[in-house]
Amino acid sequence: MKKISLLGATGSVGLQTVDVIQHHPEAFRLVAMAFGENVDKGLEIIKLLKPKLVSVKNDQVAKQLQRHLSGNVKVVSGLEGLIEVAAYHEADIVLNAVLGSIGLEPTLAAIEAGKTIALSNKETLVTAGHLVMEAAEKNHVKILPVDSEHSAIFQALNGEKLADVRRLILTASGGSFRDKSRSELQNVTIEDALNHPNWSMGAKLTVDSATMMNKGLEVIEAHWLFGLSYDDIDVLIHKESIVHSLVEYNDSSVIAQLGDPDMRVPIQYALTFPDRLELHGAKRLNLWEVGQLHFSQVDFQRFICLKLAYDAGRTGGTMTTVLNAANEEAVSAFLKGKIAFLDIETIVTKAMEAHQPIHHPSLDDIRGVDKDIRHWVRSEGLKIK
Amino acid sequence: MKKISLLGATGSVGLQTVDVIQHHPEAFRLVAMAFGENVDKGLEIIKLLKPKLVSVKNDQVAKQLQRHLSGNVKVVSGLEGLIEVAAYHEADIVLNAVLGSIGLEPTLAAIEAGKTIALSNKETLVTAGHLVMEAAEKNHVKILPVDSEHSAIFQALNGEKLADVRRLILTASGGSFRDKSRSELQNVTIEDALNHPNWSMGAKLTVDSATMMNKGLEVIEAHWLFGLSYDDIDVLIHKESIVHSLVEYNDSSVIAQLGDPDMRVPIQYALTFPDRLELHGAKRLNLWEVGQLHFSQVDFQRFICLKLAYDAGRTGGTMTTVLNAANEEAVSAFLKGKIAFLDIETIVTKAMEAHQPIHHPSLDDIRGVDKDIRHWVRSEGLKIK
Repeated sequence: MKKISLLGATGSVGLQTVDVIQHHPEAFRLVAMAFGENVDKGLEIIKLLKPKLVSVKNDQVAKQLQRHLSGNVKVVSGLEGLIEVAAYHEADIVLNAVLGSIGLEPTLAAIEAGKTIALSNKETLVTAGHLVMEAAEKNHVKILPVDSEHSAIFQALNGEKLADVRRLILTASGGSFRDKSRSELQNVTIEDALNHPNWSMGAKLTVDSATMMNKGLEVIEAHWLFGLSYDDIDVLIHKESIVHSLVEYNDSSVIAQLGDPDMRVPIQYALTFPDRLELHGAKRLNLWEVGQLHFSQVDFQRFICLKLAYDAGRTGGTMTTVLNAANEEAVSAFLKGKIAFLDIETIVTKAMEAHQPIHHPSLDDIRGVDKDIRHWVRSEGLKIK
Repeated sequence: MKKISLLGATGSVGLQTVDVIQHHPEAFRLVAMAFGENVDKGLEIIKLLKPKLVSVKNDQVAKQLQRHLSGNVKVVSGLEGLIEVAAYHEADIVLNAVLGSIGLEPTLAAIEAGKTIALSNKETLVTAGHLVMEAAEKNHVKILPVDSEHSAIFQALNGEKLADVRRLILTASGGSFRDKSRSELQNVTIEDALNHPNWSMGAKLTVDSATMMNKGLEVIEAHWLFGLSYDDIDVLIHKESIVHSLVEYNDSSVIAQLGDPDMRVPIQYALTFPDRLELHGAKRLNLWEVGQLHFSQVDFQRFICLKLAYDAGRTGGTMTTVLNAANEEAVSAFLKGKIAFLDIETIVTKAMEAHQPIHHPSLDDIRGVDKDIRHWVRSEGLKIK
């Protein structure tokens, strides 16, 4: 029986985690959870899985929630509440599916409390990979990936030695705009961007997928999770999203993980590792039904955000914090209709050009840079277009 | 340093094994070897790798060989010699790349001598899988596959539990005649059959690939190696031979091993397991260069030999010995121009129809059935066409 704390319970990954937990009551118990302000969804999960501790966005949401609950559930709120859920004494494993860089401090708190981390919040590693991995090593804590690509790599590394790895190959669907030219991208709408061909995800992630910033963040995440240099991490366009990623070994053998696109597979694997369990309602992959799998090279001139991510990763220090913060703010502005799609990459480029990176930054350095960059995007960056 | 006995040194797999050993003198030493009658090739290998014990087909070949050798090499011959090489006291691992059912007794001798077995001789498991696996278990000996498909499955099982496996999926190129109709197969020539699109292999194996009997033998081999029922072993047509085979787990996750077709990859992996080593001169797989991978369902009406193999496997007992012996004799007759291509499946069908299987046969039972069937094919079977 694994006892789970779930951060980001009402988001896309959170709800799929709830589905996984619900279908294996013999294997999993939800002991604590955090969500933002979707009280209806939150209440549903609380009634279904009966966690003992719940954290929400703020006091107001907490009061609203408490009106519907008996005294058996403790309700907390804010970043403090999020951290309390992450470090909850009964939990064995913390699944962090919070969106954005707010996921960082709860991750560190969970690591310090000795919890196994199932990490869906990629900003944690993007902005503070060195701090997170150092803390994990110090506390003998495992960081298990929940992203489908990193889970694929993690599965392809099963039983192998990292020293024998020659290259990681992250596959990318190419997102909503894979087949559009640069000039066609000028006038794409929010609705266009949110129409992802293969995966059902949240809005931020779907836009990041269309710019391929998502893949860029994943490259940085892979660098930290698996300890490989950026030269040994490749991206491969694979429009069917069936091959979720691959590992090439020094004998030229390549191990890949495949499956029908279903986020519950990597979610459940992170929770069952090193074992597996039947996955309720999963579609089996029959490659003869798929017929063909397509692969092509990624075009860094076409997907500027991916190139920016490699650049930021290679520069290191706070540059990846800049990449991530500028992107979060720009995507948020795009989703509010304030800027055009291609303005996202322009804003991130300008933010990076203006930044003097701090090497091996502390958590305070990262917080400071994160705040400054967000302020700069809101005040100056959005005018750039 | 692993000390290796190599059976079938001058054959296709044998020579590629020599190539692997030669490029890693720090990791491998050839201590004993066996070959048939290709004295020139045999001498080349002896001079290159300096084994201490060599076995050849018969006394005559042994005398011919000894004329070219100093006294440092012991030369033996016949089945007795083959067994002596297989059980050679200095060897840690025996790579059995002998062709045909003559590979069985040396495998059993090597198992009894406690050697790790790297098995390329598939007839060993096809004709006597129950005896071989029982002996391996009793002697705590590992059987490592050398076939590219079984090595792929073995690699895809790395770090996993067999209990979590739902299905093995063996890929098949479809062989030389993949795109031919049944009526076109009536008049194909030996030259046509030997023209395999992807793999460079010996003549017998290339014909078995064209009939897909090779895949059928591999299904039976997989049944014994990995302990799955025939219902849980599928065959998938994949013409590029890039995905070498796949394992589906109970959570619907699929792990595959891929690579440019190169038999040295599975050969070296069997020798280095559980580690890996650089493979000299191996072509790296870039899927964007390949562009597309194709998959289709296998047609059991089109590939009768594959259906016969599943039937024989499910019947069990001596039926697989009949399948294998009748096929060996029929392919041999085809290669001598005595029968047409489609006569191979007819002869195997008739041999199986006439056979009353013995369940859990002894080695003597197997030898008896093998001999009877070969005799029947030569005397009666070849007249059937």
